[in-house]
Amino acid sequence: MHTYQELQDLVEKELQKQRQDREPVELYRPINYALSSGGKRLRPVLTLMAANLFTHDIKPAVMPALGIEVFHNFTLLHDDIMDQAELRRNRPTVHKQWNTNVAILSGDAMFIKAYEYLLHYQGGNLQQVLRVFNQAALEVCEGQQYDMNFEQLNAVSEDQYLEMIGLKTAALIACSLKVGALIGGADDQQAGHLYDFGWNLGVAFQLQDDYLDTFGDPEVFGKSIGGDILADKKTFLVIKAFEKAGPKQLQELTRLYGNRNLSPDEKIRKVKNLFRSIGVGDLTHIKAEKYYEEARRQMELVGRESAMKKPMLEVAENIMRRKK
Amino acid sequence: MHTYQELQDLVEKELQKQRQDREPVELYRPINYALSSGGKRLRPVLTLMAANLFTHDIKPAVMPALGIEVFHNFTLLHDDIMDQAELRRNRPTVHKQWNTNVAILSGDAMFIKAYEYLLHYQGGNLQQVLRVFNQAALEVCEGQQYDMNFEQLNAVSEDQYLEMIGLKTAALIACSLKVGALIGGADDQQAGHLYDFGWNLGVAFQLQDDYLDTFGDPEVFGKSIGGDILADKKTFLVIKAFEKAGPKQLQELTRLYGNRNLSPDEKIRKVKNLFRSIGVGDLTHIKAEKYYEEARRQMELVGRESAMKKPMLEVAENIMRRKK
Repeated sequence: MHTYQELQDLVEKELQKQRQDREPVELYRPINYALSSGGKRLRPVLTLMAANLFTHDIKPAVMPALGIEVFHNFTLLHDDIMDQAELRRNRPTVHKQWNTNVAILSGDAMFIKAYEYLLHYQGGNLQQVLRVFNQAALEVCEGQQYDMNFEQLNAVSEDQYLEMIGLKTAALIACSLKVGALIGGADDQQAGHLYDFGWNLGVAFQLQDDYLDTFGDPEVFGKSIGGDILADKKTFLVIKAFEKAGPKQLQELTRLYGNRNLSPDEKIRKVKNLFRSIGVGDLTHIKAEKYYEEARRQMELVGRESAMKKPMLEVAENIMRRKK
Repeated sequence: MHTYQELQDLVEKELQKQRQDREPVELYRPINYALSSGGKRLRPVLTLMAANLFTHDIKPAVMPALGIEVFHNFTLLHDDIMDQAELRRNRPTVHKQWNTNVAILSGDAMFIKAYEYLLHYQGGNLQQVLRVFNQAALEVCEGQQYDMNFEQLNAVSEDQYLEMIGLKTAALIACSLKVGALIGGADDQQAGHLYDFGWNLGVAFQLQDDYLDTFGDPEVFGKSIGGDILADKKTFLVIKAFEKAGPKQLQELTRLYGNRNLSPDEKIRKVKNLFRSIGVGDLTHIKAEKYYEEARRQMELVGRESAMKKPMLEVAENIMRRKK
């Protein structure tokens, strides 16, 4: 059984081997750049852990795991264009470092590379594996579209929000686990439970993200606190605040939300105070815990030895307990 | 054996069935729009013809053929953003009709749909078929990158240009034929000859395109004549003109090329006269004929009954004789 660190190192090493020095360099350099920014490599590690739950030989899962990581980075690249983001992991985004055309086309090529890596898999259930991946890929696009739609909407319900983050974030984490399980030799039911484990974990993960962006410890949290508040982003916190606010709180919230005349510090402070008095931080935690519990329940249902499932349950626990 | 028209109608009908009425409509409507603009459906028809050369039952090739057509339209959609094109088949391009973000994300989703359609194929050589497609997809990206690079270069050689159009245009036509052949039951050698038939035909096709854009009959040609000249595009004609021009012609060519102060009519007339005196129209024709001959030679080598190969040879002949 492999540890997270071992698997992360393996992913990093194998990704490094895939660096493209071929022509045209204008196409391949941005791909190398996008893939060299590190990170926890959560998705490919989960693929390998899920495979490892059913087999000692995780080698057949390595290239598909890279494929999922490359796909994930492709979505970040195109999302950054759409969101006009300037930084990604403290470095200029590809469309800032080069330009939008480069980012579109290199992104497309990354996506093709993702399939190429998945196509290294030789198992008899290749078609099933590819369909699971393809379905998740489409769901990520749908999630991104809903996310952009929500920016234009006045009111977004909790259910709509949970569906959106399910598609945008949880679908690919669920897919990572199911693909690993199928390659490792899981039956459909086991693979399904790992998928559901991943989906619930993914939703909990995003809810934690929303919480930390506002209530994280600035000393520990990587990014500056309150970015979502300043961007008037519709997070779980905002949605619950609008839902639970009393008449006066609602008036104050409406005044603050979308207000670009306040100084950043003042806006963050006032919104946070309002969030605290409404109690949306706790509501977010409670919701995340609910998904975390369901994730653990799904892992129970997989029915392999407890010791074998420990690494994945530790990933889940670390996601829930993380401060950044 | 099916005629072109029968197969085109089949492709059109099956594409129509795939219209997406699902949510989010912001994602799927542009896809329906992009796929409903008609056209000759050359690539999927060639896939079906190539399958038909080896089997009567072309049904297993239908969804993969659609996949290739959807992929082709995805590349047009993203290329139109990069080229800032405003019209495609006399309708606003997707990024003009909606916006750039919609065009990026809908394009990505179309690309995923293309794989989904290819994944309908159940044959034992699925992996091989997908790898052929994936390789071509990457080559199309490389070709587009070279095309964009060429805009920034002063001198492009004939060889560089032929490599670029090989990647950007011929690779996918070659892939269409090989995928059809492999699904139909061709052996690797036969599939290889059909691939080479397609590659050579694709290059000839693009050279014809270059020729017609300048020397086509305005009464017959769909678009206005001289668009490439006005855009200072590096076509085969321009590259040969710079290569073959005498000292005085070179001086004149240098004065005209990149000159945005002339009236459109004057610029087109003067460049065309210069092209005529250098003889680049004939040189383009001769080159296209060479590729056409090689395409026919490759078809000979496939070694099936002549009558069975007639539809594909007719496609090739029509491409060479077309006036628009």
